[in-house]
Amino acid sequence: MTNTNTIYQQRREALRKRLSEKGLNALLVSHAANRYYLSGFELHDSQCNESAGWLVVTDNGTDYLLTDPRYEDAAKRCMPEENVFIYSGKKFEQVGPFLKGLNLGSLGFEPKAMSLFDHEKLRDYVQLTATENLVEDLRLIKDADEIERMRAACALNHRVFRALEDSLRPGQTEVEVAWNAERMFREWGASELAFSTIVGVGPNAALPHAIPGNTTLKENELVLIDMGCRLNDYCSDQTRTFWVGENRSERFRNVREMVRTAQQKAIDAIRPGMTFAEAYGISRGYFEEQNVAEFFTHALGHGIGLETHEPPSLSPLGTGVLQPGMIVTVEPGLYWPDWGGVRWEHMIVITEDGCETL
Amino acid sequence: MTNTNTIYQQRREALRKRLSEKGLNALLVSHAANRYYLSGFELHDSQCNESAGWLVVTDNGTDYLLTDPRYEDAAKRCMPEENVFIYSGKKFEQVGPFLKGLNLGSLGFEPKAMSLFDHEKLRDYVQLTATENLVEDLRLIKDADEIERMRAACALNHRVFRALEDSLRPGQTEVEVAWNAERMFREWGASELAFSTIVGVGPNAALPHAIPGNTTLKENELVLIDMGCRLNDYCSDQTRTFWVGENRSERFRNVREMVRTAQQKAIDAIRPGMTFAEAYGISRGYFEEQNVAEFFTHALGHGIGLETHEPPSLSPLGTGVLQPGMIVTVEPGLYWPDWGGVRWEHMIVITEDGCETL
Repeated sequence: MTNTNTIYQQRREALRKRLSEKGLNALLVSHAANRYYLSGFELHDSQCNESAGWLVVTDNGTDYLLTDPRYEDAAKRCMPEENVFIYSGKKFEQVGPFLKGLNLGSLGFEPKAMSLFDHEKLRDYVQLTATENLVEDLRLIKDADEIERMRAACALNHRVFRALEDSLRPGQTEVEVAWNAERMFREWGASELAFSTIVGVGPNAALPHAIPGNTTLKENELVLIDMGCRLNDYCSDQTRTFWVGENRSERFRNVREMVRTAQQKAIDAIRPGMTFAEAYGISRGYFEEQNVAEFFTHALGHGIGLETHEPPSLSPLGTGVLQPGMIVTVEPGLYWPDWGGVRWEHMIVITEDGCETL
Repeated sequence: MTNTNTIYQQRREALRKRLSEKGLNALLVSHAANRYYLSGFELHDSQCNESAGWLVVTDNGTDYLLTDPRYEDAAKRCMPEENVFIYSGKKFEQVGPFLKGLNLGSLGFEPKAMSLFDHEKLRDYVQLTATENLVEDLRLIKDADEIERMRAACALNHRVFRALEDSLRPGQTEVEVAWNAERMFREWGASELAFSTIVGVGPNAALPHAIPGNTTLKENELVLIDMGCRLNDYCSDQTRTFWVGENRSERFRNVREMVRTAQQKAIDAIRPGMTFAEAYGISRGYFEEQNVAEFFTHALGHGIGLETHEPPSLSPLGTGVLQPGMIVTVEPGLYWPDWGGVRWEHMIVITEDGCETL
């Protein structure tokens, strides 16, 4: 536990520096993945629409976990007992005075991860200052341990894809294929899916977020599968587009070739210092040369880590710059509503002089 | 579709009456289960921490679904095309002017289901009035179709419990037992679990929300299992406490008997007009007679429907009154940290003159 706690302490130290730059004395962390990143406490909020709790990181070096009795043991494994505050019953009548009693001065909060209801209740006791991406910015750069975890999650994804491809048979429904994938993920160690598996047969593959239905796989038809898992807390996300049967149509072969070429060109070019928009532009530019750019309807990729979708977005609007340690997806796709679509997705980590496919 | 849409229209009509009582011209519905209840659109928000969209119910009888292109088809299955507004890219720069253009007058919103971030963005365009439980109050009373769906979800829960009890063996870990249950739920028709399955062996059963771990089942030891599924969109939630092996300890038999008696006394007494606190008091009173009330550490039960935990709460603080059509859990339990715990949970529907166990 000591080593692990040290990682969280280091991350909180990095956050303290950011607080000081922003003129804040403390941050009330309510976004679950941020709270976990900084403390190791509960990656998810309760499934009963209740927060599992809040982390308070202060500039005096003493931090607090606030939670309810369900999580008391878990909290005390993450934080010294005297830094754990347990509330029950009327939450805000306990949390409010506790926060007020800490005399934190300027207390930041996370506006995207706090409901208006909670904010109204808390501001009876403390003054809250809106912040933006203070923790998310730290999470952009993955450390060696995070990269190894995501490498393992990717490896499991590959293993499931291999077994799943072998198991595809005409007549299976999209729902059945999705469940086969989920069962393998879980039985081979994943704690959960990273997101709902996408399975789209034929024209259904033209919807980038196709929900599996009762459409069946057909002989000599394509199927797009986009799936990911959570393993050791970190997410994977990969897409493949398979052909069921032996006789791949020429159109499928051509589209698949273009998509994979667009992907490879991006991976070959991506390096630190490139803007997110430039990375997008590589695949986009190739599709333009091929006169198919209008059928590439989404961003090239997104950050991934404790959450499936994290900053940055490799989109035409992306102004930031790729840096070593970022992990992003590279997932060009081409879609025709009456025919279907092909997407191919790798996860890459930015290295000192380029990138590596996980 | 017409019949189904009619149900949603009827529910929106009921909401319109409530809006008028509250002096509101419209409600911006952002809580996913409320949105689904009123429109049939997307029970869940996206797993990428993004809302799948908003429903606007207005007092002039014209309602709107606002969503992004991923859900365009789904939205148009729930609402006439001219009442679907699709945003993409900079969401609030599109949603804000659209809402403003509707000239809705007094527009209510749901403070527990709106982040401070979204609220700040929207109020640049429209004035928002906080509301409380406008839709939740309608959802308290289940109609015949909802009751049938929950009856089916309960039946599946029973079926899985029977098979799971037969499969319990010393040496299985809590995690394995939980996965066995989940696999059965999914393979027998559930779309997902209603909540993370609780499996607690021996002393672990003393934690009302035990997270399954690597503790193994032991010969002649108890195991508490609390699990539920979502079937046809509605949730089930049941708890059983089993004994692994033939020789039930006398303590287990006594505690189980007290818990089941407390449950039966509540079910026998519950009828319309009883307050939530009175219902709680029946089981509590019996435990007091037995001198074990201090080991009953939670409420007697909670409402359940589209969500696992809904109002009402059958707790000592509950001031409302049971009414026909409410569905609640009845789940007394007794817990000793050094020994374990026993909980037994049924779901009941309040009838005209009492209640029925589902």
